[in-house]
Amino acid sequence: MNPEDLSLLEAASAIRSGTLSPLEYVRSLLARIDQLDSRVQAWATVDREAVLAEAKQCEAEARQKQFRGPLHGIPVGIKDIFYTKGLRTTMGSVLFKDFVPDRDAEAVSRLRNAGAIILGKTVTTMFANLDPGPTRNPWNLNHTPGGSSSGSAAAVAARMCPAAIGTQTVGSVGRPGAFNGVVTIVPTQKTISLNGVFPLAWSLDHAGIFGRSVEDVEAMMDSLAQVEPMDHVAQWETGPSTSTAPSGKFRIGIVRDFFHEHATSETRATIDALAHKLAGSGFEVDEARLPEVFALSQPILRMIVRTEAASNHEKLFSRAPETYGPKLRTLIETGMLVEGVDYLRASRLRTRYQRAMAKLFDDFDALLTPAARGTAPEGIGSTGDPVMNGPWTLADFPTMTLPCALGGNGLPLGVQLSAPPFQERSLLELGKIVEAVVGFNSKPDITAA
Amino acid sequence: MNPEDLSLLEAASAIRSGTLSPLEYVRSLLARIDQLDSRVQAWATVDREAVLAEAKQCEAEARQKQFRGPLHGIPVGIKDIFYTKGLRTTMGSVLFKDFVPDRDAEAVSRLRNAGAIILGKTVTTMFANLDPGPTRNPWNLNHTPGGSSSGSAAAVAARMCPAAIGTQTVGSVGRPGAFNGVVTIVPTQKTISLNGVFPLAWSLDHAGIFGRSVEDVEAMMDSLAQVEPMDHVAQWETGPSTSTAPSGKFRIGIVRDFFHEHATSETRATIDALAHKLAGSGFEVDEARLPEVFALSQPILRMIVRTEAASNHEKLFSRAPETYGPKLRTLIETGMLVEGVDYLRASRLRTRYQRAMAKLFDDFDALLTPAARGTAPEGIGSTGDPVMNGPWTLADFPTMTLPCALGGNGLPLGVQLSAPPFQERSLLELGKIVEAVVGFNSKPDITAA
Repeated sequence: MNPEDLSLLEAASAIRSGTLSPLEYVRSLLARIDQLDSRVQAWATVDREAVLAEAKQCEAEARQKQFRGPLHGIPVGIKDIFYTKGLRTTMGSVLFKDFVPDRDAEAVSRLRNAGAIILGKTVTTMFANLDPGPTRNPWNLNHTPGGSSSGSAAAVAARMCPAAIGTQTVGSVGRPGAFNGVVTIVPTQKTISLNGVFPLAWSLDHAGIFGRSVEDVEAMMDSLAQVEPMDHVAQWETGPSTSTAPSGKFRIGIVRDFFHEHATSETRATIDALAHKLAGSGFEVDEARLPEVFALSQPILRMIVRTEAASNHEKLFSRAPETYGPKLRTLIETGMLVEGVDYLRASRLRTRYQRAMAKLFDDFDALLTPAARGTAPEGIGSTGDPVMNGPWTLADFPTMTLPCALGGNGLPLGVQLSAPPFQERSLLELGKIVEAVVGFNSKPDITAA
Repeated sequence: MNPEDLSLLEAASAIRSGTLSPLEYVRSLLARIDQLDSRVQAWATVDREAVLAEAKQCEAEARQKQFRGPLHGIPVGIKDIFYTKGLRTTMGSVLFKDFVPDRDAEAVSRLRNAGAIILGKTVTTMFANLDPGPTRNPWNLNHTPGGSSSGSAAAVAARMCPAAIGTQTVGSVGRPGAFNGVVTIVPTQKTISLNGVFPLAWSLDHAGIFGRSVEDVEAMMDSLAQVEPMDHVAQWETGPSTSTAPSGKFRIGIVRDFFHEHATSETRATIDALAHKLAGSGFEVDEARLPEVFALSQPILRMIVRTEAASNHEKLFSRAPETYGPKLRTLIETGMLVEGVDYLRASRLRTRYQRAMAKLFDDFDALLTPAARGTAPEGIGSTGDPVMNGPWTLADFPTMTLPCALGGNGLPLGVQLSAPPFQERSLLELGKIVEAVVGFNSKPDITAA
């Protein structure tokens, strides 16, 4: 098997047993980037010398059977909105084209401590909003990879790295995950630190993970999740998982309200077929009905995002408005006009929304929806619609997406699973079962694309 | 000694030893209210029958040597903005003149669990803002008692109850405390729950305590403070205090910047004399210089209060604007005009302000300032100026006030001590020493007033 096709766990295990050299692994991924990235453009910055030096060091340590942590020698991609010490961090804006942070974001630091090698920075849309970067979809270069974590999703799909991290304020992880046929998780808001990440709308910003299997994503979570040992709310368990896989008592709610209305017929059929398969696999699958306040979710989201984004960008924007893309510019200018009481009303309605949505878990252990309206739209002028993801980000429910079929156009379709706050471990266990039931095993052929 | 002159701890101890009957104690306080409250008007509601029934029950239990908790049989005053089950709660507004909650605020519930008797509801200004209620200052009925916790401060000063609770958004505990010559503490924001309290500006609202000695206030804190046993940040220790009294290494910063400028010359002289005495008592006392960002504290406060108050009152105000006092009405109408980005800018500057202010504790263990500009102003049309208290509420530093002298007009002057967040216990220990150094032992003579 080519090293680039190894899963994260396979590579980690091979490095530990001495059958994979960290240096050769990195070299093969760099070669793949050299071969493909002029077309995919997933990477904003790759410092080859530094990466090779780091890989040599990992190799020397591995020979001595010294391992930094569970990700020893694993190259990962970092969305270009996380601070990386000594490595250019552009935020997708010309305003930061020469910005080299003097420290790592907390999440980056945790990855390094686990032994990961920062392979490079992946393309973000401008300031993680909707103005696209140059990245293309590895499944079909004429289609968008989605955004805002465009490069992270595309790099993992194109086998340029086994895993990557990104951020989601509305649908910036789940949507590109679905469009690129990879697995993602966005845990509850503070489970992965946003310290050292350029904010878009801080009360909604979340960090998330891209991988090619649920197990790989879980391995990343194990290194990234920061849970205070005495925190009784957060339920991420460090060390060996004590969770048991969801059994026949596990109740899955398929949410057709709203989500099916916004999905393509192909997506609806795919999700319905999956629900049917899951019911046949011993799960209780029933239709979950959304509470009335759900109708306010989109307006609440828009109000919070635009006002916080305007506050956040106020100074930078006033200095160089001409550098802003039209979508972010409109967001900021609209946000500047929001009345304080309107922002606060939206924030307070959000609490009511969260409480009403949490009641869904009285009847269900997890919720099933499409990960996107359909396959990735044609063209790279838009990153697609985050409408399937925003409701869960607003609720702050941990959410996974998994590829589950190829659409008629040969591009992947994704399914989305949501669980109660802090229930990431059981969400991952469910994800493993769904992954097995689905049996998705296609991969993009970029030479053909 | 008349029962009304007993300190809280003296009364609690006498009840426990059987030398004070809870029923007689309550009767003597009710008699004092009957005698004086037509002039002071500290009380909004006193349900005599319910109070006497509760006192009889406490008495019966005490005879059996059954005590509900450390405050068994102690009558306390509750600002009329805390929900009290079965007891009218007006918020100082005609809109709530017949409102009888069906549950207790968390703080009230904790007091009841500790054995306290809810003697009644004390007058609040309208919705805890600046429009005065009818309460007068027991030291001189022609002067304001301050606000918004007007009745709680006046009732404790007039010996109608040994202790009471109130709330502070800017200076609604410290200022009336100073004007009425009583001791107060406002702990770090979540140390006393605001669950079941009508909000004014939720990001600034704090609960606080009124008593006639530091020990009494500490006894109230022991029953009111809610500290999660696993919370590593909050440092309130339940059970016996392990603190040691501040010694000669303890550094007190006197803040003359801003505070002396806003104080009367009489106040300045009093605070300077106290600082001199403390230096003579073995403390290190030096001048603390405020950071540059302090200049923004008043604008930040005003922006947050008006916007959150407007959001909070939006619905009620639109239904019955004519019932609102002119000060609250102006606050809400101004708040309605605030732009979202301006509110968020103020909230974000608050964080910068808090960090800069916290640096003062690199050099000092506590900060010393006047508790008010001077003695209570004449007239009851205004509740006086909260300018000395707001900066600490904005910083969320726990703050105590203590009476420290009588002004030339026979009304009390107060001193204010502030400590780092969650350092309430050491603040109280310092307060005991300051109390002893000051030796304030005057009390109001309402017959004369």
